[in-house]
Amino acid sequence: VLYSTILAGGSGTRLWPLSRACFPKFLHPLTGTERSLLQATADRLAPLSSPDHVYVVTGTAHAAAVARQLSAVPDANILVEPAPRDSCAAAGLAAAVIAERDPDAIMGVFAADHLIGDQRGFEAAVRQATAAAAEGYLATIGIQATRPETGFGYLKAAGTVADGVRLVAEFKEKPPPDLAAAYVASGDYLWNAGMFVFAAATFLDELARYRPGLHAGVRKLAAAWESPGREALLARIWPELEKISVDYAVLEPAATGGRVVTVPADIAWTDVGDFDALGESLPGDASGNLVLGDKHRVVLRDVKDTVIAASPDLVVAAVGVENLVIAVTPDAVLVCPRARAQEVKQIVDELATRGDRRYI
Amino acid sequence: VLYSTILAGGSGTRLWPLSRACFPKFLHPLTGTERSLLQATADRLAPLSSPDHVYVVTGTAHAAAVARQLSAVPDANILVEPAPRDSCAAAGLAAAVIAERDPDAIMGVFAADHLIGDQRGFEAAVRQATAAAAEGYLATIGIQATRPETGFGYLKAAGTVADGVRLVAEFKEKPPPDLAAAYVASGDYLWNAGMFVFAAATFLDELARYRPGLHAGVRKLAAAWESPGREALLARIWPELEKISVDYAVLEPAATGGRVVTVPADIAWTDVGDFDALGESLPGDASGNLVLGDKHRVVLRDVKDTVIAASPDLVVAAVGVENLVIAVTPDAVLVCPRARAQEVKQIVDELATRGDRRYI
Repeated sequence: VLYSTILAGGSGTRLWPLSRACFPKFLHPLTGTERSLLQATADRLAPLSSPDHVYVVTGTAHAAAVARQLSAVPDANILVEPAPRDSCAAAGLAAAVIAERDPDAIMGVFAADHLIGDQRGFEAAVRQATAAAAEGYLATIGIQATRPETGFGYLKAAGTVADGVRLVAEFKEKPPPDLAAAYVASGDYLWNAGMFVFAAATFLDELARYRPGLHAGVRKLAAAWESPGREALLARIWPELEKISVDYAVLEPAATGGRVVTVPADIAWTDVGDFDALGESLPGDASGNLVLGDKHRVVLRDVKDTVIAASPDLVVAAVGVENLVIAVTPDAVLVCPRARAQEVKQIVDELATRGDRRYI
Repeated sequence: VLYSTILAGGSGTRLWPLSRACFPKFLHPLTGTERSLLQATADRLAPLSSPDHVYVVTGTAHAAAVARQLSAVPDANILVEPAPRDSCAAAGLAAAVIAERDPDAIMGVFAADHLIGDQRGFEAAVRQATAAAAEGYLATIGIQATRPETGFGYLKAAGTVADGVRLVAEFKEKPPPDLAAAYVASGDYLWNAGMFVFAAATFLDELARYRPGLHAGVRKLAAAWESPGREALLARIWPELEKISVDYAVLEPAATGGRVVTVPADIAWTDVGDFDALGESLPGDASGNLVLGDKHRVVLRDVKDTVIAASPDLVVAAVGVENLVIAVTPDAVLVCPRARAQEVKQIVDELATRGDRRYI
């Protein structure tokens, strides 16, 4: 049975005003249903991991909300970081705690705030990755690139090691537009969606090789995890851990060493980066409008291809607009063309500059 | 000295969500300053009428707000209707109460929710109208038509009775587009802005002639106005009064009788009918944006020619839009192109159909 670790961190400023420092996007129902992105992630993993095999790593600010949203996940599997230390510390802690409980564990690492349209394809890809992990590889799910996206990292696929499983020659940083176009044209590059499957022990060995300090820290914590000294130890060790992404710290050097594989997957994946991406990912109504949240308080008149994030307490009315984003919360309103949805980040920057911190 | 009566009624559904049944447009600061339309109306009249010569007729729902906004107007001059009975009953009551207190009074009647850009021109026109009223005419301020507007009534001007004062041959209902164009081309038609000046006694005589029931009712009320029986009498008589506009009941037939004149005036008048009209009437910033309300919570990025009604408690952020209306209150949001601002009325109708009465 696969262990699944959900990394529930990050806020997602391009989904402001919905996504906030104190209420990040994974807690929101940005799924076209009542389920939050976090809950949808857990639902997606249910056929692969029973609830007692699901782990979540999250911060102090969101631990309570995470626990309530994922009521089937045992308390002991909700690992709360005293401070954000990026994904390597988070994945490392989960691997160390899981390995302490089950030394032979194979585990997946998944983001809490992505959408995947093709559930069967996802399950098949994870099963292939799990088989590769059992053979000692660090496996990633590589997303078939459908456009020359400059906002993602890429995996360069090399030789085939098994049916549907390829070696990863290299990790590539976010490319400029011409390079991204060349990547897509070659057919050998996949989007790095941050989904990994590996034996906990294998990952910890690689971590020990490339980041011995981080490895020692998470091992020490895991050894004391069930003891009364856990909180004091965590408070002492955690803030000293190196702040680095798991890709950069472990996967990239391991790939150079020939120990990383990828399962190319065409599974309607999106990282829900902004409101436009959300509109592309979820089905709209007959006019192409996507209404998130409480539809009963939305009044549209001759509106097309518009993404509306509604709030239960406010009426949202629109007349005669197209291709717009209208996002409403009880304390903020955003209006912006879908094509410029990425610029929402600058609004958050502007609010921060003004010192209006309660709105960000 | 001129008496001025401000008719503070009507809600203004095309300014939803700002204008509401329980908070009509005249109470809102739609003036480009902190002053409400009602306060701006009183400010405009200050050079013509001292506060003790200013009267307001309003409904039970808004009496308290009106009294607080116009703190200089004496309690005794705030006439509260038990129920809305249209403008003839309102103007008739004011005329009768004023005539009871000063039989020789000359009084103006003004709407609470208009904007006038040319203060000097306004004062000059009212002074000319006052002079005509002193000679026994019912005088109107006729607005020089600047476009073939189909949403207003028109006055057909005839012979000149004094410098800058013309007889009104006829009142014309809201015309179809071709007729409106012909009106503007002729130069003899003026917009009826609902601003009248007359001797209270003259008006009451005309009212007695054309609407004897209304006349008897308001006279009886005025006679008992300072007595303890006023409230009981008002509650009994008022609901029985005919519901009709002062234009239709008195001015139109009096014009046919040759007793109505108009002072043509080019004074940057607007009835603030919708958000687009507001954007045309008030000066915008360097990008042509007009922000009403609390500017400190508005964040604009590459936005042009947009009318934004902000709310003190919400951030309103917009990116990359033009010629839009974005109107925000604590419980509702409207987004619509300026060119379609009139359709806001249909949103209110839709909310009424749905039974969402608390939002209208």
